[in-house]
Formats: sequence, C-alpha cells, structure tokens
Amino acid sequence: MSKQLVMLEHGSGGRASANLIEQLILPAFSNRYLAPLADGAILDPIPGRIAVSTDSFVVDPIFFNGGDIGSLAVNGTVNDIAMCGATPKYLSAAFVLEEGFPLADLKKILSSMKKAAKRAGVLIVSGDTKVVPKGKADKIFINTTGVGSVPFGLDVGPHAICEGDAILLSGFMGDHGLSIMMLREDLGFFAEIQSDTAPLNGLVCDCLAACHVHALRDPTRGGVGGALWEIARASGFGISIQESGLPVRPQVESACQLLGLDPLYVANEGCLLAFVPEGEAKTALKIMQNNPFGKNAAIIGRVTKENKGQVFLETRAGGTRIINPLAGELLPRIC
Amino acid sequence: MSKQLVMLEHGSGGRASANLIEQLILPAFSNRYLAPLADGAILDPIPGRIAVSTDSFVVDPIFFNGGDIGSLAVNGTVNDIAMCGATPKYLSAAFVLEEGFPLADLKKILSSMKKAAKRAGVLIVSGDTKVVPKGKADKIFINTTGVGSVPFGLDVGPHAICEGDAILLSGFMGDHGLSIMMLREDLGFFAEIQSDTAPLNGLVCDCLAACHVHALRDPTRGGVGGALWEIARASGFGISIQESGLPVRPQVESACQLLGLDPLYVANEGCLLAFVPEGEAKTALKIMQNNPFGKNAAIIGRVTKENKGQVFLETRAGGTRIINPLAGELLPRIC
Repeated sequence: MSKQLVMLEHGSGGRASANLIEQLILPAFSNRYLAPLADGAILDPIPGRIAVSTDSFVVDPIFFNGGDIGSLAVNGTVNDIAMCGATPKYLSAAFVLEEGFPLADLKKILSSMKKAAKRAGVLIVSGDTKVVPKGKADKIFINTTGVGSVPFGLDVGPHAICEGDAILLSGFMGDHGLSIMMLREDLGFFAEIQSDTAPLNGLVCDCLAACHVHALRDPTRGGVGGALWEIARASGFGISIQESGLPVRPQVESACQLLGLDPLYVANEGCLLAFVPEGEAKTALKIMQNNPFGKNAAIIGRVTKENKGQVFLETRAGGTRIINPLAGELLPRIC
Repeated sequence: MSKQLVMLEHGSGGRASANLIEQLILPAFSNRYLAPLADGAILDPIPGRIAVSTDSFVVDPIFFNGGDIGSLAVNGTVNDIAMCGATPKYLSAAFVLEEGFPLADLKKILSSMKKAAKRAGVLIVSGDTKVVPKGKADKIFINTTGVGSVPFGLDVGPHAICEGDAILLSGFMGDHGLSIMMLREDLGFFAEIQSDTAPLNGLVCDCLAACHVHALRDPTRGGVGGALWEIARASGFGISIQESGLPVRPQVESACQLLGLDPLYVANEGCLLAFVPEGEAKTALKIMQNNPFGKNAAIIGRVTKENKGQVFLETRAGGTRIINPLAGELLPRIC
C-alpha cells in the first residue's frame, strides 16, 4: 500500500474506480445508505426543517498537529450545520485527487474522517472521487456537504440578536491558524501548538437546551474579528468586546507577536461565538465550561445599540479600536 | 471586469470574500434561503424520504460546445438525484478557484449555473468559495450536492430489476465525451459535436408517472457500457444489448472510429438508462420520445436470467461480445 499511488484510472468510472471505492472508501464509511453505491443515497425522513451547508477543504499541509484535512472536512461541516441550531445527521464527501497522491495517505485521511464522523454522530452517505493529472491540483481537496434537522420553533441567526446580548467565545483563539502557519513557516519552536479542530454539535446542543441562544457562529477563516464584523453588519447592532477578556493561549500569543499577527483574525476550527440574553450569560458560560469542547469559554463582549454595524474593541490600555475585516489574505489554504 | 482576476484575498473570509459573494455570487443565485449568508441554509420541511447526491466537477476545458463547467455541475447533480427516482429541490455549490482565474469567466459560469438551475427547477441554497495559489488547482473546480424528495412507496434501483425487463436509452451515446475530446485534440472538423448536458428530472418524472420503472442510471463516466456493467453486477442479473439498436449520431460514430474509441464507453451528460417491465417498454419509449430530452430514445436490450452479473452485446455481424468496464482511463477530466 505504501508505494501505491493514485492513478488517473482511479477516476475513470471503470474497474479501477470501482476497486478504489470498494477497497478503500466503502470500508471506511460503510453504512446502509452508502452501501448500494447508487447515484445518490436515500435517507429516512427528517422531521421539521432541514439545514444544508457545504464547504470545500484545501488546507495545506494536509496533515498537521491535532488533525488532518479529513477530520477538518468532517468537523467543519458538522459545525456549520450546528451553527444553524441544527443537529447534523448526514454528510456527503467528494474528493479531488492529484495523480500520484499516495494511496496510504488517502487511507489515513479516510480513517480520520471515519473517526471524526463517529465522534460527531454523523453518517457519510454519498461520495464522489475525481482524479486530475499531476500538477492540476495539490494532493487532495475534499468537499463535505451536511444535512441536519432544525428543532421546531428554533430560530437562531444574526436577525435574532438583541441589544444587551452577551457574547461568549467557547475556546482559545487562533489555535488552528497558528498550527498550520507553524508548519508552513517551519517554526519548530512552536511545534506544540495544536489545531483545535473539533465537532461542536454537542456543545451547541447543551447551550440550546439551557438558554435562549440568539445567534451562533464558528469563527473560522477571518477569525473572531471577521466573524463578529459579519454579525454586526448582518444584525445592524454594534458589538463591543474587551481585549482583556479574549481567551488566547500564551504560546499562540507569543507566536502571533513574532509573526506580526493579531490572534483576533486567525482561524479557529473548534470554537464558537454564542449570543445569549444578558441575564443568561453566566448560565451559558457554566454550561459551556462543563462541556469538554467549551472548557476554556469566556464572556468576551456584548451587543450595543450604538455603533451600528461596527465592532469596537476596548483595549487593555483603556483605548478603543475599531475591528474591521482584513482587506487581504492572512494565510491562504487555512481550511 | 474582463481584466479582473481572482486573488487569494477572495478566499480569505475578509472584505474581498464578502465583495465577491455579494457582487458576483448572490446576484446569480439570489433566493430567500441563500440570502441570509449564514453558515448553512434552513429549508422548508421535505415530505417523505430524502435523496442526497454529491459530485465534484473538474472538466477540462471549462467551456465547450453545448455547455460549460457551470451547467454541467448543475445538471450532473440534478440527474444523480433524479436517478434515485427523486425530485431534485435544492443544490449547494462550492468553488475551488485558482488564483489568477478571470472574474469574467467566473461570472459567465455563475450565469450558466443560474440558467441551468432555473431550467431544472432547483434552488442553489448554500455555497462556499476557496482560492488556492496559482498552479495549485486548474482554473476552477465546482462541487454540487443535491437534495431531493423521493415519492412515497417508490423504490427504484438495481435491486428492483426483474428478468425480462426492457432497457431503454433516452438519447444518443457519446455526445458529451466527444465534444470535450474534439476540443482537447483540436479536431476542428468535428466541431459541430455538442455536449448533451441537460437536466433529466422532467423526463424521469414523465416515466415514473407512466410506467413501473425498476431502475434508472445516467451513463456518465464509463459510458453506457460502464453503467450497464455496474447494474448487472449490482442486480445479479445478466444484461443483453443489441449493437444495431444503440443510438449514436453518425458524426460521433465517425469521430470515434478516427480516434479508436468505442462510443459504448464514452461519457454522456444528458441521457439515461431506464429498466421497465417488458410489457411497458413501448409505453415507456413513447413517453420518452414525447419529451424534448428523450426524443432520440431507443430500446437497447433486456435483462436475462443467464450470464449473471455480465453484459453481452449482440453485434451487427451476429456475434456476441462481453462488455467489461475499461481498466484504464479513456479521457481524464471529462466531467
């Protein structure tokens, strides 16, 4: 296996494709929906409204501290579905492979997707594999699209935000982005920084059960700063956050200083922003901290009537800074 | 617009991403599900069982006679959903763009997706855009994932095939594959060959209303030969087809002869194979021929108890040939 490579034939729809699917992909994802290998999967009825979300993953490098492109692709879409207030149930997985990609690496990634899907409680029910000639893609790109069920009567989103809402962040900022950047820049001395890639559906479920969650967002590309800016813009409210309350690991903060980065804009893959009524902030914080994926949660700010559509940061020094999204690209292929 | 190019910033999750989405993507696909630009789309309840299918499109060249990567990506997934006997309702669309790709080409592709979605009666409800550095992907790859509704009590698939079933093919073989090959090989004298890319959900709907359809399959990669081989294998029955009954355009046949190809293995993107009870074959044929996407339909063969799991072709000369899937790759990046 270790010397076998993806060949163009693996994407042909002929015998090599069938072998790849039957020997590598089916054993990883086997379930009664995928097994018939039809053009599509037929699922059981999903009660209530349905949430759908899609994401293509092009992360470079494909293996990193704390995860790989496979676990990232599963967790990323699980989280996007969860951010709608929905319970993720099914995922599709579509692969674009570069000719010459080692089959052993593909096997490793499939195994990691299998584990991530099991951990998140979702089934991979439909798939696709394309192979492009060497040099026409970079190793492997994965698209996952998720389908989930939205509880009756639940309506979370920027439109549901109210003045005074407390804003919680469920974990440390910047871990994922830094873990990738450390590998790219070959900065071995920060090698212990791990991606936070994780499924957040359980954490969302806990929060929805315990309080009136108004909005949820996972601050991936663009970081916490980018996500808050989008929410301020979409809700029409102002957002005020306190620099002193922002959770950042000391080693991430040091690495950011070294690289001239602001952790507010660095991507996360395992934490979420939750907007809850002021009076429920402490309950929400406790609920998060009791969940393994929210143990470093913090209340980071609140929603204001002033500064409509803008995000203000109160600095440690007592000043105020407007948080705008970055105009350029901090780090391509972060997810 | 014509000189503007995709930049890495367009995939950053920052201001450039927001501009690209708001100025190019939203105007093309605008609908009430996509408009909130949340992490996922929340859809109305879908009654009954749900069909899900995913496909990534990497076709090269991206513009060809009769369509482009955009219309292909919409029709391809619409058809995969329809082949489950389902009514396609919603699609997601995820783009991997190469840095430097012309925004004018992206606009053209989006417009073509918009038209194709309208024609097929589906809404594009969730999206994603990633940009990779120049040379790390080839122009544009599109993943579409579809969600559809399966009528109560309907169960189509290879498992439902019966001995004696008639096999119908709804249109000419090989048009799509040849249209791509003509461009790749720069064979201008066959320039009139057009891809057959088309949405087949209406045709499927007509057939399901008029007869007891046992199985459906769109013979894309691997062609009619590859699709029949898969079905024979999955159903456990034999399949017998008549060479004289296979519909092929004369210019496709000539081009195939010139290139040393068998049209049986060339990809299609706008025709389907239908398995119906022997006694309903003529009704099914008439129904197909009355639909604009089935006017060249033909009865091409039947299901046999003999030769289990195999496909036999009765040649024009009166001989018999076993149809196996190709071991190698006929033409990479056909879809």
